[in-house]
Amino acid sequence: MEQIKTPDWVKHAVFYQIFPDRFARSPRVKHPSMVKFKQWGSPPEEQGFQGGDLHGIVDKLDHIQKLGITAIYLNPIFSSASNHRYHTFDYFQVDPLLGGDAALRDLLDAAHRRNIRVVLDGVFNHASRGFWPFHHILENGADSPYIDWFIIHDWPLRPYPRNKKENPNYSAWWGLPALPKLNTDNPAVQEYIFDVARYWLEFGIDGWRLDVPAEIDDDEFWRKFRRVVKGVNPEAYICGEIWSPAERWLQGDMYDAVMNYVVTGPMYSFFAAKTLREYKKTHIELAPLTAERFAHKIDRMFGLYNQEINFAQLNMLDSHDMARALWVAGEDKSALRLCVLFMMTIPGAPCIYYGDEIGMTGGDDPYCREAFPWDDETQWDQELLNFYQQVTRLRHRYPVLRTGTFETLHAEGETYAFRRQLDDQLAVALFNTASEPRQVSIHVPDGNAASLSQMWPIADNVSHSLQGEQLDVTIPAREALVLISTPN
Amino acid sequence: MEQIKTPDWVKHAVFYQIFPDRFARSPRVKHPSMVKFKQWGSPPEEQGFQGGDLHGIVDKLDHIQKLGITAIYLNPIFSSASNHRYHTFDYFQVDPLLGGDAALRDLLDAAHRRNIRVVLDGVFNHASRGFWPFHHILENGADSPYIDWFIIHDWPLRPYPRNKKENPNYSAWWGLPALPKLNTDNPAVQEYIFDVARYWLEFGIDGWRLDVPAEIDDDEFWRKFRRVVKGVNPEAYICGEIWSPAERWLQGDMYDAVMNYVVTGPMYSFFAAKTLREYKKTHIELAPLTAERFAHKIDRMFGLYNQEINFAQLNMLDSHDMARALWVAGEDKSALRLCVLFMMTIPGAPCIYYGDEIGMTGGDDPYCREAFPWDDETQWDQELLNFYQQVTRLRHRYPVLRTGTFETLHAEGETYAFRRQLDDQLAVALFNTASEPRQVSIHVPDGNAASLSQMWPIADNVSHSLQGEQLDVTIPAREALVLISTPN
Repeated sequence: MEQIKTPDWVKHAVFYQIFPDRFARSPRVKHPSMVKFKQWGSPPEEQGFQGGDLHGIVDKLDHIQKLGITAIYLNPIFSSASNHRYHTFDYFQVDPLLGGDAALRDLLDAAHRRNIRVVLDGVFNHASRGFWPFHHILENGADSPYIDWFIIHDWPLRPYPRNKKENPNYSAWWGLPALPKLNTDNPAVQEYIFDVARYWLEFGIDGWRLDVPAEIDDDEFWRKFRRVVKGVNPEAYICGEIWSPAERWLQGDMYDAVMNYVVTGPMYSFFAAKTLREYKKTHIELAPLTAERFAHKIDRMFGLYNQEINFAQLNMLDSHDMARALWVAGEDKSALRLCVLFMMTIPGAPCIYYGDEIGMTGGDDPYCREAFPWDDETQWDQELLNFYQQVTRLRHRYPVLRTGTFETLHAEGETYAFRRQLDDQLAVALFNTASEPRQVSIHVPDGNAASLSQMWPIADNVSHSLQGEQLDVTIPAREALVLISTPN
Repeated sequence: MEQIKTPDWVKHAVFYQIFPDRFARSPRVKHPSMVKFKQWGSPPEEQGFQGGDLHGIVDKLDHIQKLGITAIYLNPIFSSASNHRYHTFDYFQVDPLLGGDAALRDLLDAAHRRNIRVVLDGVFNHASRGFWPFHHILENGADSPYIDWFIIHDWPLRPYPRNKKENPNYSAWWGLPALPKLNTDNPAVQEYIFDVARYWLEFGIDGWRLDVPAEIDDDEFWRKFRRVVKGVNPEAYICGEIWSPAERWLQGDMYDAVMNYVVTGPMYSFFAAKTLREYKKTHIELAPLTAERFAHKIDRMFGLYNQEINFAQLNMLDSHDMARALWVAGEDKSALRLCVLFMMTIPGAPCIYYGDEIGMTGGDDPYCREAFPWDDETQWDQELLNFYQQVTRLRHRYPVLRTGTFETLHAEGETYAFRRQLDDQLAVALFNTASEPRQVSIHVPDGNAASLSQMWPIADNVSHSLQGEQLDVTIPAREALVLISTPN
């Protein structure tokens, strides 16, 4: 068995997820005069495109960099006739509405100059009914040379049903006629997907987030995929969208990580227990948790995988596929801050969903996909933004928060603590979800080996005492304390 | 008024028209394993693709060059879900089935090394229902930013009618739902088309043949188009598909030439009068003609345009849009030869439709689109091929046959003659469509200025005498004589 290896840069990264149509529109993109976008900031429940583009992201790199971001995960950017672009039309072309290939070139160059990496969304299970080989079959029937790229049940194809009862007569993702499934058992289709993966890595991207990869139920496929990806760039990131425990894919031979929705539910359930919104989401269990239950879930989660995997996981509170963090937390910013502080101090790369940092809120898709408001004076929560900037700085300053070991120290009702150790650097993080300060007394093994200093909160110094391995401290109401040792 | 100027190379060219799916399949094109073509040589009335590609043309350049070809006109090569590729799917990509952009690169480089130019087919009036902006509207309705690229009558769009009575609810070429018309009144669409034209000229092509350009009923559009094309390459060829007299477009400010179907009907009607197939084709009148009537039509045709245009016209007997020459001529090879000899000796670039030179025959589309049979020993008419090779050589040898003046000298029943003059070079071509030799006595003005020598037929020397300006000669049965002066 080969040793498990994940990209080092991911372990040290703070990610930012961007939904391209809604992040920023650049005046530098000269669309043909007749291309008509919706007003920026239109209600997100409306169909259509608001005209965000990749040059727009470049224009906002100052904001992104100040936020402490070192990697961007982009929702799909290839040509697609849907505003989320999961209905891929052309895998070899950046959507012209996003500025085309030239805009991706610009973004990669500009981001890389700032040491910010860029990971794309790979949608390989299904294409769209406008995708070339599918369209070819639609036009030519069984005479199309692409006949085996999809799984056709009978003729003529009916990709545009006239009523709800009409099912597509070909394999489609969730039976949706817009999304014919690629026949990934077919070596030609596999070759094609590998070509796509290779092409954009050679173009300069830093990895692939894989959309619904479990739907390609073929481990050998994913092993080949990994060889292709790492063959171009051994440091490229492969992150699968798997919402449940994912040991099957995380043995080191397929993905480096998954979008770690396993941590998402417990975070809200503990830190936002008091204000939790009623919100049902498959795989995300939301119900108030005690610290004991929370700790159990977190320990179990970290126990699922090799440490190398845990360090590379993509931890997040929200995404384009679920309600925004602030919304789930019932608009309680102290709950949001606790969740974010937790994410910033545990193993795994934290991922901030665009706009969370300035107070954007909104329920399930499409309400989580609003246009980013760029008037920072009237539309931003500057205090929240400042918080985000400080906590990413905290994470970046201390390697122990990124690649230290993780061990629960304490879990009792509304207080919870863990320790992390890297070489002779020790960190202890303590959380209090109660509405009043709580005193805790915790045994910190090897704690006496170092002098712990308070690194969070930054402003208010909280008295703590360390006697031998006994740490006594009062955690302020709905706050976290982060203590880090400076070696003797 | 600017002086009319057409590309010099066209005046001296012999063209070869290739229907890419049916010319040659190259073993060098590695199609994904599951791409399944029909058997090469399958009945052309069957749907589907036989797998000809652009590398295949490169592989056959020896044949093409030996035939005396100096320019290739290719039927459409951009991605399309039809075997003729007039249903354009992506104007910026050579069809992957043809080998993709790399294959066009290969063809251009290989052809140019042999001084063979390559002209592409520009299909700008209509796209296909798979074309990106149309598909975008189909998926997004009125919310698509591309809404003004087409002319939509009502919603929802119905590009895939369920029965014959259902008309498309958008403007479509000839009401065909597969072919939505581009809204070329829209400046964005104009920009797009000009970008396409510019892109491939910059890629290295030598000109555009324009599909049904009269359907873009906007002279200013075509004037702009010309400026774009000539801006990249002043020597690029612009040849419109206009089947009727085309003075409107041939004043020097729009096209350099048209596909000269105006000469096609008279050629068959005179040279193949005895064996003419019953064949109805719009704009092509087929009915036996006397030499007098024939001469009248030819003189009228040359009288339509400036000499600079006449020299650049694309003269041809057939194309992918009509029955093959041999078929129209009732399989009579002497008729075919007379037609070809005429084409090779008059002003305008002759264009040979692929395979005519080895005896391919077949009626109207799709029968004129058979796969080229490459077994030269059993499948080719070597004598006919030899004839074609000799007559193109004849044309190439004598500049007077390309850019000399044209004047009818004689037209009487079944015999016909014209003279051409370039500086002090004189050519006289005489045709006898009768089944027996015919003696003619013709007044050749200035004929005495030169000593006329027989250049055709090559083998059999026919006696002729020139006394003063009086030429007496016996033309063999169903043969042409070409006499050319060598200056004193």
